[in-house]
Amino acid sequence: MNNFTFYSPTEFVFGKDSELQVADLVKKYGGSNILLVFGGGSIFKSGLLDRIENKLDSANITYSRLGGIQPNPLDTKVYQGIELCRKDKIDLILAVGGGSVIDTAKAIAAGVLYEGDFWDYFEGKEIPKKALKVGVVLTIPAAGSEGSGNSVITKVQTLQKLSLRTPGVLRPVFSIMNPELTYTLPAYHTAAGIVDMMAHIMERYFSNTKEVELTDSLCESLLKVIIKEALRLKEDPTNYGARASIMWAGTLAHNGILGTGREEDWASHFMEHEISALYGVAHGAGLAVVFPAWMSYVARHNVDKIAQYAIRVWDVTPNGKDKHEIAKQGIALLKVFLKEIGMPTTFSELGIDQPNIDEMVKRLHQNMGESIGNYLGLNAKDTQKIYNLMK
Amino acid sequence: MNNFTFYSPTEFVFGKDSELQVADLVKKYGGSNILLVFGGGSIFKSGLLDRIENKLDSANITYSRLGGIQPNPLDTKVYQGIELCRKDKIDLILAVGGGSVIDTAKAIAAGVLYEGDFWDYFEGKEIPKKALKVGVVLTIPAAGSEGSGNSVITKVQTLQKLSLRTPGVLRPVFSIMNPELTYTLPAYHTAAGIVDMMAHIMERYFSNTKEVELTDSLCESLLKVIIKEALRLKEDPTNYGARASIMWAGTLAHNGILGTGREEDWASHFMEHEISALYGVAHGAGLAVVFPAWMSYVARHNVDKIAQYAIRVWDVTPNGKDKHEIAKQGIALLKVFLKEIGMPTTFSELGIDQPNIDEMVKRLHQNMGESIGNYLGLNAKDTQKIYNLMK
Repeated sequence: MNNFTFYSPTEFVFGKDSELQVADLVKKYGGSNILLVFGGGSIFKSGLLDRIENKLDSANITYSRLGGIQPNPLDTKVYQGIELCRKDKIDLILAVGGGSVIDTAKAIAAGVLYEGDFWDYFEGKEIPKKALKVGVVLTIPAAGSEGSGNSVITKVQTLQKLSLRTPGVLRPVFSIMNPELTYTLPAYHTAAGIVDMMAHIMERYFSNTKEVELTDSLCESLLKVIIKEALRLKEDPTNYGARASIMWAGTLAHNGILGTGREEDWASHFMEHEISALYGVAHGAGLAVVFPAWMSYVARHNVDKIAQYAIRVWDVTPNGKDKHEIAKQGIALLKVFLKEIGMPTTFSELGIDQPNIDEMVKRLHQNMGESIGNYLGLNAKDTQKIYNLMK
Repeated sequence: MNNFTFYSPTEFVFGKDSELQVADLVKKYGGSNILLVFGGGSIFKSGLLDRIENKLDSANITYSRLGGIQPNPLDTKVYQGIELCRKDKIDLILAVGGGSVIDTAKAIAAGVLYEGDFWDYFEGKEIPKKALKVGVVLTIPAAGSEGSGNSVITKVQTLQKLSLRTPGVLRPVFSIMNPELTYTLPAYHTAAGIVDMMAHIMERYFSNTKEVELTDSLCESLLKVIIKEALRLKEDPTNYGARASIMWAGTLAHNGILGTGREEDWASHFMEHEISALYGVAHGAGLAVVFPAWMSYVARHNVDKIAQYAIRVWDVTPNGKDKHEIAKQGIALLKVFLKEIGMPTTFSELGIDQPNIDEMVKRLHQNMGESIGNYLGLNAKDTQKIYNLMK
């Protein structure tokens, strides 16, 4: 087990009607004049935004608004938000939505208190040391941004999709999580969210660090529960227990606890970022295409952990088989599951008929360096082959 | 799954040499003139206290000292600490030790900022809203106090052993955890610590709350890893991987994550508190005696979760057996394990030849109310029978 620091200071308020506590929580964390950040139609239709604004009004909390945040959120909205915060002297940002909305709120929160261009942080030129406080009302369980110190933003001009990871500075001060708010999430987005959280676990799980049975075992448990609950949700989208499990699992998948003491991988995420940057697909759907291809490729060179995953997560029986065969069966079962929940596993199923693989490989290594990932370091030749496996 | 709030704002700094960061962390959290709280001989012998004081000296952090904290820590030391803090204008308390030392530091931290008697908090007459900051250098993995908001103190005059549970106020601001510091822990105390952390998981696991597969599964994983690592440690007490797993498992067992969304039990802890209050035994050893007896008794009335535990944690094969039989086998395997790691499973093995059961039952219900526990509510007749099973 490696040395580590783990710091997760977010207050999670979870359950039915938890959004009714929004004004109390905003006040508790010093918000009196806040910025509301949100996305598109669903929170209007569901009345959620109205309910939140009513609560804020009743508590004499004033607010400005920044709406229309889209999936794969853009830097342009961040600049707009930073300007708004400065102009309106905002003291806390409340994100109402999923990962894109929360990531935008975090980037704004860091940018407001920085004299330079907030993009410096995403390019790794500077490390954020302070930020406005961010609170969350979560509506899409997927990205885990409600419990992480991370943010992923795409720069419109260059289509660079980069991530910022901070140990603690950007963690939300509170996250309100009501599983009932996810009842109306379409099946496709529910499934994409599920793949995203599974990917967050697998990026940590596939590691060469020794003596990590504790976190291995927690990862495997969480994956198995997510798989089971995903199938239950497919049949019954308003099953509270299943929605609640999926929602909390998404947070635990990405708040860092599963990565304690181990090297993580993240090559699949970086490869997917190039797909969604170029083609605007849902991140989780992109990961459904990347992960089996990545696993098939790396298993040829470093099979142990993929075989362990096949046995422990997908119940592949090991008797008499070599590890490559076991790994292959595990990957096949992952694909069956992905199809079962309506996810693509090829470029064409993702709606990309002629993927520009050369361009993605070029941009990937420009953005992330010559070698990406840790379970197996991948150079441009490797990633080219892996993208080709997705055809 | 029930509604819940989860808030765990402690910064955990884990791994080899992590204690070298003590002065940086004290400063980071605003400590400049601190109280060092510690126990007996081992931290002198190992040179740990010296090393910490040297680090503090080099950083110009001044400190007062309160040593000699004993297992089952006493209110008298808390009063002494409160006085010291007020006299010396202490701004942070650094606990160097295990659960007793940390619990004492927390009680002092709450008491300093309270005008009344700190014991009011433990009797539930008042709820602490503020406290001095507490930092930790952990030397005994067991109580989980390094990551919890709880404290357990015994009142000398009345031998009441009461616990205080706060959602966040008393959580340490940082906890330094170096598994190497536990290499010299005697086998008996290592084992007692392991039972304590297993008990913290089981108090949460045995619950009637429905739809908690997520946390059930995390509990089971953690228990299985602890059991495996305990046996490895028995053979090889300086195995870093095993020490590290046990140390981190002890924190996860009790920082609240495993209890999210579920009713917890705690009857076994309350029953043990009466044993250690009267007979001064190690808390973990006491729990080794209580838990199998409690499980045998409650299984007669509410068998489901005990049977699930037997199957999933102890790999009891269910085929053809009724749940009571399965539960029985699980409990028997727990006892075999406890004996294997050198723990007692009866009063006499605990060194108590003539337990005053009537007195324990009387005090238990005086302290904790007519009915204790949630998995099965236990009145005085029930607890009398359970204590008798420990003979």
